[in-house]
Amino acid sequence: MKKGGIYRHFASKEELAAEAFDYTREAAWNARLLHVDEKANGIEKLKQLIANFVEHRSPIAGGCPILNTAIDADDGKPVLRARVAKALRSWVGRLQAFVQQAQEQRDARPEVDPKAVTTLIVASLEGALMMSRIQRHDEAPRRVQSHLNGYLDREVGVLR
Amino acid sequence: MKKGGIYRHFASKEELAAEAFDYTREAAWNARLLHVDEKANGIEKLKQLIANFVEHRSPIAGGCPILNTAIDADDGKPVLRARVAKALRSWVGRLQAFVQQAQEQRDARPEVDPKAVTTLIVASLEGALMMSRIQRHDEAPRRVQSHLNGYLDREVGVLR
Repeated sequence: MKKGGIYRHFASKEELAAEAFDYTREAAWNARLLHVDEKANGIEKLKQLIANFVEHRSPIAGGCPILNTAIDADDGKPVLRARVAKALRSWVGRLQAFVQQAQEQRDARPEVDPKAVTTLIVASLEGALMMSRIQRHDEAPRRVQSHLNGYLDREVGVLR
Repeated sequence: MKKGGIYRHFASKEELAAEAFDYTREAAWNARLLHVDEKANGIEKLKQLIANFVEHRSPIAGGCPILNTAIDADDGKPVLRARVAKALRSWVGRLQAFVQQAQEQRDARPEVDPKAVTTLIVASLEGALMMSRIQRHDEAPRRVQSHLNGYLDREVGVLR
């Protein structure tokens, strides 16, 4: 382990990678919250978050930091793996709070399980992002966005 | 580049990685086809494929070879990237053929876009697999499976 330069401030290279990861994922999340209208209906807010994910992508080159780090952190990097797991929990938790808020404001049906809604949104967006990176076009995120919007209208939102 | 041993048969290490990738993804696909009942209704076949993806995972340790290779192949490895892109096209194409067959047999609605169905299935399953690797439990794949089954029943299958 090098002790000079940038490594001086971190216990290890993995620690440095973990700090860099935390920074990028916070930046990615904040960029996606920017265009969410605080006064919108709860279902609309979820749609805006999904649109931000599809349209604005990550402000950091290379796409979603969770996706990028997930594979790399899988084996033999416990510090980084723990950060990725925490980031995923944080993202799922924040989305879940949006769904619960929508239920409290009676925009979302009370019988809907916020965890189920959130898991579907995160899984399909992350998978679509991976597909778009391989395919080098954004057909998959667009199609997933359209499916999720329909799903939110038909199965999560309150019919008015 | 080493010329001895196993590298003798391949033009480069990347070529070797590409061959290994082709082998594992074919094995993964065949394992998932094993439990698909040829005589089942087209929508049932899709559900069985999804169940195989969720329950049997990959026969190769470490999960989906496309997901694993996607991130790694993203920059500076054109041979591997091309293989991953081809594998993804092949997987999407094979699933699409299942949807089209279901339409021909009048199990699926004629107005449904097979590409849209397929993209949603692949994106949400790949994303759920990534989540389950980080979370170390299979809640995400199970929830996605349940959503996809409901979606196939309500929006793709012919109401009888």
